[in-house]
Amino acid sequence: MPSRFELANAIRALSMDAVQKAKSGHPGAPMGMADIAEVLWNDHLSHNPANPHWANRDRFVLSNGHGSMLLYSLLHLSGYALGLEDLQNFRQLHSRTPGHPELGYTAGVETTTGPLGQGLANAVGMAIAERTLAAQFNRPGHTVIDHRTWCFLGDGCLMEGISHEVASLAGTQGLGKLVAFYDDNGISIDGEVKGWFTDDTAKRFEAYGWHVVPNVDGHKPEEIQAAIELAKNHDDKPSLIICKTIIGFGAPNKQGKEECHGAALGDDEVAAARVQLDWPHAPFHVPEAIYQGWDATARGAEREQEWEARLARYAEAFPAEAAELQRRLKGELPSDLTSEKLIEQAQEKAESIASRKASLACLNELGPQLPELLGGSADLAPSNLTFWNGAQAIAKDAPGGNYLHYGVREFGMGAIMNGIGVHGGFVPYGATFLTFMEYMHNAVRMAAIMNQQAIYVFTHDSIGLGEDGPTHQPIEQLGALRSTPNLATWRPADAVETAAAWDAALKRHSGPTALVLSRQNLPHQQRDKAQLANIERGGYVLRDCDGTPELILIATGSEVGLAMDAAAELATKGRAVRVVSLPSTSTFDEQDADYRESVLPRSVTKRIAIEASHYAYWYKYVGLDGDILGMHTFGESAPAGDLFPHFGFTVENLVDKAETLLG
Amino acid sequence: MPSRFELANAIRALSMDAVQKAKSGHPGAPMGMADIAEVLWNDHLSHNPANPHWANRDRFVLSNGHGSMLLYSLLHLSGYALGLEDLQNFRQLHSRTPGHPELGYTAGVETTTGPLGQGLANAVGMAIAERTLAAQFNRPGHTVIDHRTWCFLGDGCLMEGISHEVASLAGTQGLGKLVAFYDDNGISIDGEVKGWFTDDTAKRFEAYGWHVVPNVDGHKPEEIQAAIELAKNHDDKPSLIICKTIIGFGAPNKQGKEECHGAALGDDEVAAARVQLDWPHAPFHVPEAIYQGWDATARGAEREQEWEARLARYAEAFPAEAAELQRRLKGELPSDLTSEKLIEQAQEKAESIASRKASLACLNELGPQLPELLGGSADLAPSNLTFWNGAQAIAKDAPGGNYLHYGVREFGMGAIMNGIGVHGGFVPYGATFLTFMEYMHNAVRMAAIMNQQAIYVFTHDSIGLGEDGPTHQPIEQLGALRSTPNLATWRPADAVETAAAWDAALKRHSGPTALVLSRQNLPHQQRDKAQLANIERGGYVLRDCDGTPELILIATGSEVGLAMDAAAELATKGRAVRVVSLPSTSTFDEQDADYRESVLPRSVTKRIAIEASHYAYWYKYVGLDGDILGMHTFGESAPAGDLFPHFGFTVENLVDKAETLLG
Repeated sequence: MPSRFELANAIRALSMDAVQKAKSGHPGAPMGMADIAEVLWNDHLSHNPANPHWANRDRFVLSNGHGSMLLYSLLHLSGYALGLEDLQNFRQLHSRTPGHPELGYTAGVETTTGPLGQGLANAVGMAIAERTLAAQFNRPGHTVIDHRTWCFLGDGCLMEGISHEVASLAGTQGLGKLVAFYDDNGISIDGEVKGWFTDDTAKRFEAYGWHVVPNVDGHKPEEIQAAIELAKNHDDKPSLIICKTIIGFGAPNKQGKEECHGAALGDDEVAAARVQLDWPHAPFHVPEAIYQGWDATARGAEREQEWEARLARYAEAFPAEAAELQRRLKGELPSDLTSEKLIEQAQEKAESIASRKASLACLNELGPQLPELLGGSADLAPSNLTFWNGAQAIAKDAPGGNYLHYGVREFGMGAIMNGIGVHGGFVPYGATFLTFMEYMHNAVRMAAIMNQQAIYVFTHDSIGLGEDGPTHQPIEQLGALRSTPNLATWRPADAVETAAAWDAALKRHSGPTALVLSRQNLPHQQRDKAQLANIERGGYVLRDCDGTPELILIATGSEVGLAMDAAAELATKGRAVRVVSLPSTSTFDEQDADYRESVLPRSVTKRIAIEASHYAYWYKYVGLDGDILGMHTFGESAPAGDLFPHFGFTVENLVDKAETLLG
Repeated sequence: MPSRFELANAIRALSMDAVQKAKSGHPGAPMGMADIAEVLWNDHLSHNPANPHWANRDRFVLSNGHGSMLLYSLLHLSGYALGLEDLQNFRQLHSRTPGHPELGYTAGVETTTGPLGQGLANAVGMAIAERTLAAQFNRPGHTVIDHRTWCFLGDGCLMEGISHEVASLAGTQGLGKLVAFYDDNGISIDGEVKGWFTDDTAKRFEAYGWHVVPNVDGHKPEEIQAAIELAKNHDDKPSLIICKTIIGFGAPNKQGKEECHGAALGDDEVAAARVQLDWPHAPFHVPEAIYQGWDATARGAEREQEWEARLARYAEAFPAEAAELQRRLKGELPSDLTSEKLIEQAQEKAESIASRKASLACLNELGPQLPELLGGSADLAPSNLTFWNGAQAIAKDAPGGNYLHYGVREFGMGAIMNGIGVHGGFVPYGATFLTFMEYMHNAVRMAAIMNQQAIYVFTHDSIGLGEDGPTHQPIEQLGALRSTPNLATWRPADAVETAAAWDAALKRHSGPTALVLSRQNLPHQQRDKAQLANIERGGYVLRDCDGTPELILIATGSEVGLAMDAAAELATKGRAVRVVSLPSTSTFDEQDADYRESVLPRSVTKRIAIEASHYAYWYKYVGLDGDILGMHTFGESAPAGDLFPHFGFTVENLVDKAETLLG
């Protein structure tokens, strides 16, 4: 039977070998955290390598994602579908072992990590998802959801602001089944952290209401073991285990120094580490006894079978709940969802209301049908209008709700949503002002990278926000969203398009959707059945003229009404003008060429785009022969009614522009 | 002589009256913090209302910027150039009293605040600037720089992640002259914060190494006074004074509730508050005795005169230092700065190096000439290459340096840079990977809003980053930067353009500049004198053909070399191809129409833009008749040499595209 040290050294050897072969990567963290990982994975982690999708598995998150070889080594050694050849292809194109752990590339990777701090936030989201799903589905004597979430993190994660946001919320929520391990090695890229990071981290986390196990020697299995037992016994608070470690442990000349953090050790140092660690095996060779010591397939299968039996008993006692749980875990919408009908109903209602208010109406209709909706706002619920009639706050003593008061924590919200999403069982939505999307954009991006559904409710979407002024008025944000791959962005023109946007967002399982909504009322637009059906194509002809138009006005959101009014005036002057509403450019771009040509015929080169957002994006649709009525500067503080004319958003100005363009 | 309570009530009355008149704004915070503000401003703040630009004044930052009427009331009452008519125009177009405090709109407003948490970061930057400037210029017996920085903040600021980043760094740096007041009123927009914010904030800040004065009754002047004295006596650590307050204090039916946070109180409640506060005066009327109690002009003038005398003695003893201090405070570059010469020299050197490396070469040349450069990186110094030969880390025991190890705190860095910038005496530069620009984009935006110089060194600017993969490879970031008003963005093609970009950044005092730099080597390009001179116009013809080109290739950064190679191949095929290097689109757009036409003639509609960044932005220059070789998806983890071909960045593919376009 190999010793714990030998088992841990398998991680060290594979990590340094893979980084050395790739001549790129981070050996320091895997070598430093190998002993902690060994104890956790061999003695505590409940998982089944043969089925990485087992719903009730423990979740493991490597927040210090640059240490990816730690995770790949663990997956390989414990029996996941990740072979030596995969490790040998570390960081190569199309390999299963990319530079950072990427969801969907590698069996057993739970979330994409690398941007520091976000992994911890994902873990908080997973722990919330587990607890809420358990509260919603478990029944006395029937515990079908019951797992822990484990998270590794480093100095970088703890310096990032997001660690504050999510650790604070995790403390308030009392997430007792969340356990984080801090790799306290005293080194970051600039060198010894004492020059820039002197927090008393134990005290800091106690201030958040965490249970802290300080001063654990991260290279002594018995201390690690004891700390984990302590953490398991504190189930009313999340636990932080602070492990003192030596970065690059085992590399005799480079350990404890920044040198081993983010570069291959070099052939000589790898050889010296083999001696130091008493690991005489060839590169990428792991003795059979070591593999046996790591193999988690048998106990994993047993655990999952035991759970399957529990689930079967549950299904017998609570067949409806069990079916619903299965539906939720599969991420399928109810077959009788009425989200499509809401579009027609909104057209009939013909209300001229703010799109944020129209969004609330959608939530009030759809919320009761979709218990998987797990909503929230970064302390702007009364402004974002996300706390619908049936919203129930999730709290430590009320974990079964469906709404998180995230507090003023936009970035934390975005990354927690990702954790909730990848956990399964929920469709997260979260809200803030469109401008403060920036605080969380990297989490939006991560959802897009991970192909994860998430719905963002970004309200107060332009200078229409009014008096709060330029710091709160978005300008460049829409362009940033639209240029984020795999993100669908909708800026609806009225309540009808808002309903269509919600419908599209709910059905888009392959990535996130941003709903960009107005503070102010928007005029209702008339549509026939065909137009109504075309909204979901992202762009459509809202008003047309006889014959080929000489001019096309392209608008979104609050500027559609303006375009319609200008078109009406131009029509009285004998101009043949078409108005295209383009609520979702990415969705429109995905339509077939014939449809796109039918909306925006290539032959019509005189086009004006109208949007109270940065103008640059719109050359994409008007080219160099058109014109753009957009924003070129930041906004100003004034009532919205004064700002639109101030920045030229008037029928008069638009008609002028049109006549100039038409010549 | 009016009582302190009466003096404070002037703030309350003006604030509720102005919000009521505007029917928009936030009365809660001004009414809650009025007593704290009264003690601080009347007994401690060293300032001169007649000269808001006095260099040695104390800095006051309202991080909870929505409470702007608090600050406007203070400025008005203490004697700044802000009249009652200004207060009556609160939140109106072109008023001096915008919804949030905006630098440049109002005499005495030190920084633009509103996006929560950033004001605290600005204050940390100001305190660093003060201490470093003092260390660089004060001499024994000659203390010319010596002031405090005071900051008000609320629950929202403390929930935001950035508060962690900057409070942690402030603790490590031991910023003893920074004093923050926490408006602990227990209310945020979603309601009572205990549902989402239960930090032990005193303990949290102690963990950062702050001196904390807890449990101060924010409505008892004597307790506030004692707390401030305690803070002043602790000059080795920043101080946090935690004041328990009642939001909307004085509004009998709404105080202590969310209702009074962000909306006018209503005429009835305003009237009731007048009774409650025993403030019988008409709206916007302040009795003369109250004005006298607040008037800070006489003692302000005296203080500044005393300082002027000190400065005169300093100038006599240290004339060179005094002249240099004046230059630094005026923000003037040395007249003999060689930054322009570096461009020519780089052309002569003809090095094919990474632009991040070329940037380091610029810093090594310019650093010694520019002691005002205050650099840093968010823990990526060895990658960003910002720690130049003469860089000296700033630390608690070495405050006179010129470089901050910001730690892994991108957003904190950006907002601290803004504080350093608005303080005066420094030109801040700060670095991270281009992707992680997102973590800090809102601070970049704030610099642009404030017309503040700041230089961002964003390296690893594309898939050229390689193995770290999609989480680290920027795609949509360049578009976001280019669409941020008043931000100049440069993506240089080689060492020569890098030198030009640094020169432009140093000379751009009216706003921030982003330098977007490669990880990998970039081929040197040949240029004649005219081309060399045109780099600073943001775009220029790098390679031309005889006669009118039939095709223009437009490229930036690492793709310029590719465009040049493709043009050479197309030329051998008899094609008339021009290559335009466009390192700074915003700078190019500012050139006169003739110049722009000379580079990109309107008649040449066949154009291809080439950039390893999101494609959408480039329609702006190629229109609908051109083509774009850009990124449509996220990147992948692989060596850069594999990624460029994988995503189509090859001469072969570009030549194909060109031939297809040419037909």
